[in-house]
Amino acid sequence: MSFLLSELATRFDLRLKGLPEAKIWAVASLQDAGKGDISFCTDHRHLSELEGTKATAVILHPDIFEQYQGNALLSENPHLAFARIARLLNPERRKPAGIHPSSIVHAEAFVHETASVAENVIIEKSVNIAAGCEIGAGSFLGEDAVIGEDTVLKNNTTIHHETMVGRNCILHSGCVIGSEGFGHAREDDHWLPIPQLGKVVIGNDVRIGANTTIDRGALGDTLIGNGVKIDNLVHIAHNVSIGDDTAIAACVGIAGSTNIGKRCTLAGQVGVVDNISICDDAHFTGQTAIRSDITVPGIYSAGILLEETRSWLKNATRFKQLNSLFKQVRDLSKKQD
Amino acid sequence: MSFLLSELATRFDLRLKGLPEAKIWAVASLQDAGKGDISFCTDHRHLSELEGTKATAVILHPDIFEQYQGNALLSENPHLAFARIARLLNPERRKPAGIHPSSIVHAEAFVHETASVAENVIIEKSVNIAAGCEIGAGSFLGEDAVIGEDTVLKNNTTIHHETMVGRNCILHSGCVIGSEGFGHAREDDHWLPIPQLGKVVIGNDVRIGANTTIDRGALGDTLIGNGVKIDNLVHIAHNVSIGDDTAIAACVGIAGSTNIGKRCTLAGQVGVVDNISICDDAHFTGQTAIRSDITVPGIYSAGILLEETRSWLKNATRFKQLNSLFKQVRDLSKKQD
Amino acid sequence: MSFLLSELATRFDLRLKGLPEAKIWAVASLQDAGKGDISFCTDHRHLSELEGTKATAVILHPDIFEQYQGNALLSENPHLAFARIARLLNPERRKPAGIHPSSIVHAEAFVHETASVAENVIIEKSVNIAAGCEIGAGSFLGEDAVIGEDTVLKNNTTIHHETMVGRNCILHSGCVIGSEGFGHAREDDHWLPIPQLGKVVIGNDVRIGANTTIDRGALGDTLIGNGVKIDNLVHIAHNVSIGDDTAIAACVGIAGSTNIGKRCTLAGQVGVVDNISICDDAHFTGQTAIRSDITVPGIYSAGILLEETRSWLKNATRFKQLNSLFKQVRDLSKKQD
Repeated sequence: MSFLLSELATRFDLRLKGLPEAKIWAVASLQDAGKGDISFCTDHRHLSELEGTKATAVILHPDIFEQYQGNALLSENPHLAFARIARLLNPERRKPAGIHPSSIVHAEAFVHETASVAENVIIEKSVNIAAGCEIGAGSFLGEDAVIGEDTVLKNNTTIHHETMVGRNCILHSGCVIGSEGFGHAREDDHWLPIPQLGKVVIGNDVRIGANTTIDRGALGDTLIGNGVKIDNLVHIAHNVSIGDDTAIAACVGIAGSTNIGKRCTLAGQVGVVDNISICDDAHFTGQTAIRSDITVPGIYSAGILLEETRSWLKNATRFKQLNSLFKQVRDLSKKQD
Repeated sequence: MSFLLSELATRFDLRLKGLPEAKIWAVASLQDAGKGDISFCTDHRHLSELEGTKATAVILHPDIFEQYQGNALLSENPHLAFARIARLLNPERRKPAGIHPSSIVHAEAFVHETASVAENVIIEKSVNIAAGCEIGAGSFLGEDAVIGEDTVLKNNTTIHHETMVGRNCILHSGCVIGSEGFGHAREDDHWLPIPQLGKVVIGNDVRIGANTTIDRGALGDTLIGNGVKIDNLVHIAHNVSIGDDTAIAACVGIAGSTNIGKRCTLAGQVGVVDNISICDDAHFTGQTAIRSDITVPGIYSAGILLEETRSWLKNATRFKQLNSLFKQVRDLSKKQD
Repeated sequence: MSFLLSELATRFDLRLKGLPEAKIWAVASLQDAGKGDISFCTDHRHLSELEGTKATAVILHPDIFEQYQGNALLSENPHLAFARIARLLNPERRKPAGIHPSSIVHAEAFVHETASVAENVIIEKSVNIAAGCEIGAGSFLGEDAVIGEDTVLKNNTTIHHETMVGRNCILHSGCVIGSEGFGHAREDDHWLPIPQLGKVVIGNDVRIGANTTIDRGALGDTLIGNGVKIDNLVHIAHNVSIGDDTAIAACVGIAGSTNIGKRCTLAGQVGVVDNISICDDAHFTGQTAIRSDITVPGIYSAGILLEETRSWLKNATRFKQLNSLFKQVRDLSKKQD
């Protein structure tokens, strides 16, 4: 599949500079690009790579447009234009419809005739798999699970009973959806498990990363909104609710019954305590511990900047005396006045 | 299955207020409850939900008993009473006994006739699966693994050779037990792997979360005590020992040869270094790094409180000068004296 | 298999003290050792255990050699000597060659006749499995995956299409290699997935831990160097590059396009942001957040030392006023001068 540069310009409403008839087959980075490739450059930091690129064309921000003599498409958001062109040139490859004979499908389950079920899949009673779905080898779908149209489950995924997944989602390999929540009551010295009676409900256009776990609700459900994107090795506890279009990076842990708003971003290893609310459009940098409600949109951080271990240890030791230091300084101020 | 409110009161030794003959079928939250449901309310923070509830009965702490006009059961620990009633109303559903024909069981393995083995399970030589066990689809049990009575393995679990699991445990989907420990000796610039010759021994009534990993010992074994509850995506390294009834929340990592006492709680994302000891009844809030022995029971924390990123960065930058600041203040104090 | 102490001394070039004809069958810890066992002791901290050991022989550092009356081998690096002897006494047990009939191997895949493929393995088109490989039960290998000689995949691993794994590697159970990277462009309020067109390339002698995930590159590849050792539950994002002989402990997360040098060590729960470079021989203690380039070899740390929660909270609250405190102290200094 190839496109003329002019076709790409028209299709994505981009201004063209250079040869309209340049032929584009593929996307590549500025360094790796060659004949037939289109690349992109967002800002001045990559000008040296831009200068040396052998790409047939480059998507550029208008601000750096003058710096480049080759073929270009101009966009206020070169990253987005690049994503759109990369998707056009690399359409998803879907597996052919049909159920592999090694898979075990319960007689009372429904698998749409256009869906693809790979090797060694287990599909229990009353599961419903809609048109265009793709279920990867070794996956398990428990009773009453519902998978919406065009959703893809990669390999060795585990979808527990009653889980509802919307349309056009992708669930990556090894994820576990609908496992029992971590709910116990204290009984003398022991922990008494509380039945986890809810389920997991996942919206449309959701991405779940590899080996990520999402627990079913205790009472009521765990809710993942439309367009939510979740990276690998994320833990989402029972009865958490995540608003539409929120993005959660790898190794994040979210404790039970916490509500996260829409369009939030949680960077890697962020931790969120249980039973709090985070408003829409709140953003958190990596490793931030979120210990209480967030009510104002904004960008939040926590943590210490690394330093050489010996000097760090001196400062970290002092931290334990920080409150005392404040009192000492207050006293000094008073004396001086 | 339904119970009269008076039956529940008698069975769990709770004081009844209201109609003894009220019929209870199910548990629900205060907001979602309707006819036939029992809910619970622990303290004043939920009084508004209590007021509006349509539950047939509510389990209440005596302190808030006067605030509610409907049917109630009184308990000093409403959460525990609720857990007990929820368990009564929602008994575990166990799969029927028998080995699915797609599973591959070694001729020298033993599976008790009352155990259930689901689809595509692999059971190697000399594995011993006791009465009442349930082994989920796609699970693997390596040579000489021993699974105690009534223990449940969910789907796609991996139990490596020689692992011993006690009675009445639940191991959630995707967990890996008995993988090789991360042990290497430095040889010039390289890492030479050290054979991991121990195994994992898990007590009774233990819960292991989804995609959690527990490594086998190098010399000697990794030990998980009775009643230990472990959440999802937890890592437990070789030769760790965890005392009875300790609870470990999601995304915790525990390094090698560390001993953790009884009845401890480690909140989400806590990290524990290798070769230390933590006493009984020690509790740690989320993300705390435990870098040395803990010898006194108590509640421990570490970390920074989040703030808006711009102000955080100013404070975090100052942290590197904290030790200097202490010296400066000491000098100021001396001069002033 | 047993060896005379003199044979071990000769083979590993160690000085012998005591009976050359002592017979050694196995390795054990100082506490657990008995007849036929060899143990090791690196330094003075373990002298009391050394005194009480029933080991037939002990590997000792010359510094503590005088403190022990029994049979001994002397080494400047007793841990390494122990590792070598442990490996000699415990050779890897490999499964017999051949493909289990329950596995599904594509007609156009190649599996070397000396390789072992266990139960329920799926091997897709054009996969190439070299001599001496061992593929564990329930594993999946996608199209065009290449596995080098003597490499072992444990159980329920997922190796996505085009992944290249070198010689003599071990990939532990539940790991997912070559999953799609977490790459999206912002399009109004939504996230538009960007095709992930690269692959994962893993060198020789690499260890990947249980349930670890390594994403394929977006453009270009994710690269894991020779001799790299990665523990359990680690996340490595798209286009990360890791230099030879670097060791990464459990629960570490590394964000996209970051380059890590050779011989680095990242302790547990370390987090690394995207698009940075870390030089060779840089070491990081547990939970350190690495937010910018590291250009100088050394040992780095971050984080707060734990304390009792009540006192921690006072200090942590003060942290938000730290920058103000510096200004206050500066003003006090000025006044005093």
